[in-house]
Amino acid sequence: MSTQSLSGKELAGEIRRRAREQARDLEQGGIHPALAVVIATDDGSTHWYVRSIERAAEAAGIGCRIIDLGHDATEQVLASVLRDLGAEPSVHGIILQTPLPAGVRTDALVGLIPPEKDIDGANPLSLGRLAVGQPAFAPATARSVVEILEHYRIPVAGRSAVVVGRSAVVGKPLALLLMERDAAVTVCHSRSGPLERYTAEADIVVVAAGRTGLLNGSHVSPASVVIDVGTNVLADGSLVGDVDADSVRGVAAALSPVPGGVGSVTTALLLLHTVEAARRSSLVPVLENA
Amino acid sequence: MSTQSLSGKELAGEIRRRAREQARDLEQGGIHPALAVVIATDDGSTHWYVRSIERAAEAAGIGCRIIDLGHDATEQVLASVLRDLGAEPSVHGIILQTPLPAGVRTDALVGLIPPEKDIDGANPLSLGRLAVGQPAFAPATARSVVEILEHYRIPVAGRSAVVVGRSAVVGKPLALLLMERDAAVTVCHSRSGPLERYTAEADIVVVAAGRTGLLNGSHVSPASVVIDVGTNVLADGSLVGDVDADSVRGVAAALSPVPGGVGSVTTALLLLHTVEAARRSSLVPVLENA
Repeated sequence: MSTQSLSGKELAGEIRRRAREQARDLEQGGIHPALAVVIATDDGSTHWYVRSIERAAEAAGIGCRIIDLGHDATEQVLASVLRDLGAEPSVHGIILQTPLPAGVRTDALVGLIPPEKDIDGANPLSLGRLAVGQPAFAPATARSVVEILEHYRIPVAGRSAVVVGRSAVVGKPLALLLMERDAAVTVCHSRSGPLERYTAEADIVVVAAGRTGLLNGSHVSPASVVIDVGTNVLADGSLVGDVDADSVRGVAAALSPVPGGVGSVTTALLLLHTVEAARRSSLVPVLENA
Repeated sequence: MSTQSLSGKELAGEIRRRAREQARDLEQGGIHPALAVVIATDDGSTHWYVRSIERAAEAAGIGCRIIDLGHDATEQVLASVLRDLGAEPSVHGIILQTPLPAGVRTDALVGLIPPEKDIDGANPLSLGRLAVGQPAFAPATARSVVEILEHYRIPVAGRSAVVVGRSAVVGKPLALLLMERDAAVTVCHSRSGPLERYTAEADIVVVAAGRTGLLNGSHVSPASVVIDVGTNVLADGSLVGDVDADSVRGVAAALSPVPGGVGSVTTALLLLHTVEAARRSSLVPVLENA
């Protein structure tokens, strides 16, 4: 059978366009949507990624401030910078880019990003708010998956969705987003036994485990829609997902490619979240916590 | 076949004993563990429930302050009381008892319970911390389910667990607790289609949907362990769960009764959480958020 390719490129373009239009509207109201990315590593690919966010933000009319604290930044310095950005009214979105220097407690630092500026859903409070249905930003990668499903009009309500991987960054928030959209959601992982027990009859299979070739054609059915969240860099520098695409193609109904799938939508969503955060900040402040 | 009855009574007794012993140890160190329950309703069964917590606390050597603000308490008054209790060092655990007066925003109020005193896991931050693996109290009902499984040595790791119900109070936190224990976890609900699609082959089925008779013998298999979280009061005043027990008995491997199952363990866990909160408060304060 022919497997549909769920490219994210057209959708990413649409989202960028929406972000640009909303940024323009905000500009006209005197608000200049802006994003701050805090980075503290020498890792080349991380710097490349952050620069790609910066370029995308500029193209959308969104300010982007990169705060490079160097690979030996202390937790104290990082905390102080995050507190300042949290309090700074001209910054609407904050990303704390990983990896961070060894010994720095990431979990303590992400707790310093105010939920209303937490455009990549890194603060546990954002995740908790998502779980109870309060306004919050989901991690952009998790939202990217549901946006791709929606873009291709793949029904979610009443369907079974299996998420492979239980990370706080993708698996868990994605499970919440799919539940909210009325799917029956199964989260399985490296310790839950044979994958095919769960994936074989699922309508939607999302793989977010960080392991090359984890899912192959034997795990899925002709009815399966497969979304590949994996981003694994091979020795030759090429990027592959968690799905053995050659094996799944010809078996499943649809598959999102890597690269060009989830990842391309993710950056666009960071921009959209930034303008959403800027718009909300411009509304009459709602009294939080009574 | 004969279905094992997973009574919670012995376990509840054990947990109360543990709470009492730990409370005594804390007393000897000059710490008097104490719980505060805020109530704002005329509902008789709610008052009865709160008094049962008070009696259990007193029997365990835990102080229990009931703050009855009346059925017409405003959100402002409730917020002010919760803020005071949050700041009061002699109070280690806080429960905001529902139902609350109409118009009061429960979600804004629970956000005022500091996570370290949030012994019934009501604050979304507690749920978020649970999701990312940071120290937090789970809602007592959710923890009760995993304690019953552990008490009866029912394996969870590598097994499939199906949770029926996606509430923020039981379904979602329970899914997190089961994932943490290495189960493959499926959450299904009223809009996810026929139950048996998910329950029929599950090793563990937990029903927390608040609907009498929702799960019956046709939904489960001889291998199923069924935990009934439902507490539905019938017209004649009797208490029944979400499981049609007569129908499931004789089919499933095991079933927790209602009453005498999950509910009896829940109150005991509120006491244990209170002494745990008191013990943590006595430790050298760890610098949170750097």
